[in-house]
Amino acid sequence: MLFKSLNLSIDADRLLGRIRELGQIGRDDDSALTRLAASEADKAGRNALVDWMKDAGLEIAVDRIGNVFGIWRGSDNGDHAPILVGSHIDTVINAGIYDGCYGVLAGVEVIETLRSAGFVPSRPIAVAAFTNEEGVRYAPDMMGSLVFAGGLSVEEALATVGTDGTLLGAELERIGYAGAEEPGFLQPHAYVELHIEQGPVLEREGIPIGAVENLQGISWQRVTIEGVANHAGTTPMAMRHDAGHAAARVMTFLRDRVSGSNAPTVATVGCINFEPNAINVIPSRATFTVDLRDPDEMRLKNEETALADYLIELASAEGVSISVEQLARFEPVIFDNTIVELVEQAAKQRGLSSKRMTSGAGHDAQMIARICPAAMIFVPSAHGISHNPREYTSGPELVNGANILLDVVGKLAGLD
Amino acid sequence: MLFKSLNLSIDADRLLGRIRELGQIGRDDDSALTRLAASEADKAGRNALVDWMKDAGLEIAVDRIGNVFGIWRGSDNGDHAPILVGSHIDTVINAGIYDGCYGVLAGVEVIETLRSAGFVPSRPIAVAAFTNEEGVRYAPDMMGSLVFAGGLSVEEALATVGTDGTLLGAELERIGYAGAEEPGFLQPHAYVELHIEQGPVLEREGIPIGAVENLQGISWQRVTIEGVANHAGTTPMAMRHDAGHAAARVMTFLRDRVSGSNAPTVATVGCINFEPNAINVIPSRATFTVDLRDPDEMRLKNEETALADYLIELASAEGVSISVEQLARFEPVIFDNTIVELVEQAAKQRGLSSKRMTSGAGHDAQMIARICPAAMIFVPSAHGISHNPREYTSGPELVNGANILLDVVGKLAGLD
Repeated sequence: MLFKSLNLSIDADRLLGRIRELGQIGRDDDSALTRLAASEADKAGRNALVDWMKDAGLEIAVDRIGNVFGIWRGSDNGDHAPILVGSHIDTVINAGIYDGCYGVLAGVEVIETLRSAGFVPSRPIAVAAFTNEEGVRYAPDMMGSLVFAGGLSVEEALATVGTDGTLLGAELERIGYAGAEEPGFLQPHAYVELHIEQGPVLEREGIPIGAVENLQGISWQRVTIEGVANHAGTTPMAMRHDAGHAAARVMTFLRDRVSGSNAPTVATVGCINFEPNAINVIPSRATFTVDLRDPDEMRLKNEETALADYLIELASAEGVSISVEQLARFEPVIFDNTIVELVEQAAKQRGLSSKRMTSGAGHDAQMIARICPAAMIFVPSAHGISHNPREYTSGPELVNGANILLDVVGKLAGLD
Repeated sequence: MLFKSLNLSIDADRLLGRIRELGQIGRDDDSALTRLAASEADKAGRNALVDWMKDAGLEIAVDRIGNVFGIWRGSDNGDHAPILVGSHIDTVINAGIYDGCYGVLAGVEVIETLRSAGFVPSRPIAVAAFTNEEGVRYAPDMMGSLVFAGGLSVEEALATVGTDGTLLGAELERIGYAGAEEPGFLQPHAYVELHIEQGPVLEREGIPIGAVENLQGISWQRVTIEGVANHAGTTPMAMRHDAGHAAARVMTFLRDRVSGSNAPTVATVGCINFEPNAINVIPSRATFTVDLRDPDEMRLKNEETALADYLIELASAEGVSISVEQLARFEPVIFDNTIVELVEQAAKQRGLSSKRMTSGAGHDAQMIARICPAAMIFVPSAHGISHNPREYTSGPELVNGANILLDVVGKLAGLD
């Protein structure tokens, strides 16, 4: 497919100004940015977004799970399924200003640019801000897009009790974003999500555009090892059943296995706890989490099996008992190759290098991929940092990404 | 040296009854036993002890750090340095009934037995209950014996602020055990401490008496590893600086090194903490403790050096920074061989097998060994468990140990 450029570019100042402005909403006394889903800060952020959507001439729709849509319908394309772009504007605690917000505001920007250039789309173009992508206040994460894609009933989602004891449904009512539309009222023709990479690969390789072809499968497990608490001074090494030591063995096993292969598998032990957690007592219990990810489902399953086998062997060798709880499990998502190719072509046409890559993080796109062809565009993250005030992508890099989104949406909504 | 038996035995019912009775003092609503140093419960325990000492006809003395002494002075041996026996009666939280109390009550029992048998000692015999051996409420542990032996000034010790914000000096005043004697007012001729093993060795080998010839040196360190927090999904394995993984490497290094040698060294990681401790974030910081023990100072130093060298290597390999804080350091203590031989001979004479062994735990004896010849006698601990309600030594085993103490004290205070 030959890619025809629109010879348009987005308004860099308008986009970057809105990103900065949205990033000031939800600052606490220490100037930390936190807009948890369905909070007062989220309400203020949503209100700002809706104002910008209205400025862009978009029709506003809110569904029952609080997803906000800005829709540009042409006079005679209303019968066609829309092109959907977007992401989320809720944040983690003490967040950066780019994660999610960039994709939503770039979506508004792209529609505004197309519209003011007199572009005539063959189908509606809509931008979505999905509710509760971060999952900090209400679990699971990516909830709004999951409900929109039919993966979770809206009733169940609204009944979610938050970490602060609140009910999501009541909080959405309170902030005025319990909408009337049934989730899924829009059936997209295609979905494209522009996002910061949140990893170090593009920056390290000096590549401005990531053409995201798939998204890692995720396996989250909690491992509990039960040993025997005993005196650290009086218990010979050979007579110990040390739950903490066994936990360390699992950690080094995972690292050695994953680092020793050429596969893109990643394994992380992020949480750990010992009991009784006393300097002179051999731990009787160790609890830790395992985060395993791989873009290939077969390989992810193999890693899970290898871990399970090792735990059996370890329990026997150390005289401990080990139990495992599955906390989350998502299969890898393969994005639509046609859209991925459009991203590559758009980059090439603008003289930007691009790289096919895997998303290591979860995104709304993985949910929307259940109901339509979908893909993502990544831009570099400085030092790979996100979910942190130091999250940073330079203005020119943000503008590059938004222009690629513009080209891809123009192509998808083009008449040819 | 040929050992001459006194042909005496302690009163088993009296000793075991007092152990049980003291073990009922300081029970909470859930019937858990806790007598933290200088608490109300400790006061009640001390009062019971003093009553028993008085019943045994002992002169009571309390020093400024609250150590309680019951002294049996003969009519014409007052010029001689006393034989001191004893241990402590403070406990950990949710304790067993034997740790410490056994040695103190057996000391009272031994003196009472000798006295009522008309034994004429060549020098005074005294029994001590040292303040705050456990160190749970006030650090350091073994405080009373350390002050008594001149290793810590009484003023500094009394100024210790507890985990509950209290001042030890004020608490001793409050419970009526801020005594008048200067610590060290007694200069012992010898010290013998009878104690449960708190380890599994005697039980496993079926040996009733441990002749404790030395006490392990202890090195406590807190290791802090600083890495880089990053997204668990988007950060390739090769680009990680995972503080948690580095901590696991230290743990397996220590275990492999110590278990792979024939030396009696023990190494334990009892406490651990990750930051930010989130399932999907690579730990930026791991903090953990290392408890290293060995009866040989040179070997203990070698282990400390090997750990330090490994940390340097690991910091470089993993791109993390590592700092170490020394929390405690005690050199090994060599007990007095003459007393150890007396223990062995007494056991033999009573037809009991004995084993020369190392104390893996810290005890008041290690402090008193600074000022006079000292040794310890161990009896088996069921399953090696202590500092726990399941701490248990059978009645006959307790009686055996007390009779060996009787014989050894009789010998040390004999006229020959």
